[in-house]
Amino acid sequence: MSEKSAKLVTACVVLIGDEVLSGRTRDANLGYIAKHLNQIGVQVREARVIPDIEDVIVATINEVRARYDYVFTTGGIGPTHDDITADSIAKAFGVPIGLHPDAMAILGAHYKETGGEFTDARKRMARIPDTATLIPNSLSKAPGFQIGNVFVMAGVPMVMQVMMDALTDRLEGGATMQSRTVSAQIGEGTIAEKLGELQKRFPDISIGSYPYYRGKTFGTSLVLRGTDGAVLDVATGEAAALIRGFGVEPIAGDPV
Amino acid sequence: MSEKSAKLVTACVVLIGDEVLSGRTRDANLGYIAKHLNQIGVQVREARVIPDIEDVIVATINEVRARYDYVFTTGGIGPTHDDITADSIAKAFGVPIGLHPDAMAILGAHYKETGGEFTDARKRMARIPDTATLIPNSLSKAPGFQIGNVFVMAGVPMVMQVMMDALTDRLEGGATMQSRTVSAQIGEGTIAEKLGELQKRFPDISIGSYPYYRGKTFGTSLVLRGTDGAVLDVATGEAAALIRGFGVEPIAGDPV
Repeated sequence: MSEKSAKLVTACVVLIGDEVLSGRTRDANLGYIAKHLNQIGVQVREARVIPDIEDVIVATINEVRARYDYVFTTGGIGPTHDDITADSIAKAFGVPIGLHPDAMAILGAHYKETGGEFTDARKRMARIPDTATLIPNSLSKAPGFQIGNVFVMAGVPMVMQVMMDALTDRLEGGATMQSRTVSAQIGEGTIAEKLGELQKRFPDISIGSYPYYRGKTFGTSLVLRGTDGAVLDVATGEAAALIRGFGVEPIAGDPV
Repeated sequence: MSEKSAKLVTACVVLIGDEVLSGRTRDANLGYIAKHLNQIGVQVREARVIPDIEDVIVATINEVRARYDYVFTTGGIGPTHDDITADSIAKAFGVPIGLHPDAMAILGAHYKETGGEFTDARKRMARIPDTATLIPNSLSKAPGFQIGNVFVMAGVPMVMQVMMDALTDRLEGGATMQSRTVSAQIGEGTIAEKLGELQKRFPDISIGSYPYYRGKTFGTSLVLRGTDGAVLDVATGEAAALIRGFGVEPIAGDPV
């Protein structure tokens, strides 16, 4: 195992906005971010959903940026009064905030091209904390930004995704977590003891057991995760054999 | 306004499990819990997604149970080795954990009826922290539990939902947050300044502005939230008038 593959690089995702907390909107960003980051060797270890309240944003960011290698936020960087993420992040880092010349140029050119008025409200989207660097937004232009280990992105999924693509080169990944899934129409409780023994024999693999229901059938998906593909393959083979020991044929992957 | 309707009762939702953090599963519980709780006057103010790691569960629970009126957890109460929520919650409260007689009776009867073996692994689902009270599970029988202001529920959405129904009578709600939505094919940036003025005139109403994209059309949904329906109606009328002032006809509700 190389030194690079052994290092665990961690991240926290902070979803900022009342709309997910109220149940109005179902978050679509966490899963994308988690999968994307894992591909480059960054593991999301925690996520938080918090409201558009300055004190909460400041306290949350300062807590998680000290605890994780990277922090990714979504939401609250638009032109309206409830977009308070940039100001809150500046406060968290104790730096001033003002109109960023590059952001002003990008947005100025955009509104000139589209014929929209570059209002004071829209200039709000050029407010960037001092010392931050911009994250390009190829879709709707208004940039995100990076300050320290915190990456501030839009909440609209399409825009977040182009920002994530644009910032990926700045991240230094470590071990990539691989996963294998084995499913079978068998109860968790039936295999639980043998599964616990299997987990003990593979301490570097994390074995998750997830019951599923599909109409009138039910079963269990075992998800094995680890950084060493060869060990993972062996453990997955043993998990399948374990299920077969109960007279049930497992399938690779999720239940159909 | 009655005293009851004026009190703000808060909650935090803690989703426990690696499957949401890895992006494998998209959470389906937060939205349900948030909507359900709001109907009885409990506001979800924060949500956290954390992995199946004891230290993290203990620290998170102790932090949020001190900060919010109620805490609701989902996940990690099944029969397998990765189901460590009950033991972690016991540790957070500093109480012993053991087989709960009522939970043993419920599960014993269930496996007798269904012909399944009541294995040691399945008995794990009867491990309940001392002083906790059970939350009935009419679907798959294995109970959740309440200890102090923390309610521990299953992660499978159908099971979580019957537990939530069963525990609702124990909650004391306060103000119910009502919401109104107005949408229009207009950019956020266009209305942002007027909207900020509207927000200032209605300090007890929270006005959220959410851009949307529907194929080639885009627009903005304004979501107004507050506890006083009459004030909310007035503010919503003014928001609609504000949009009309830009020559665009708003619609009530989400964009079609």
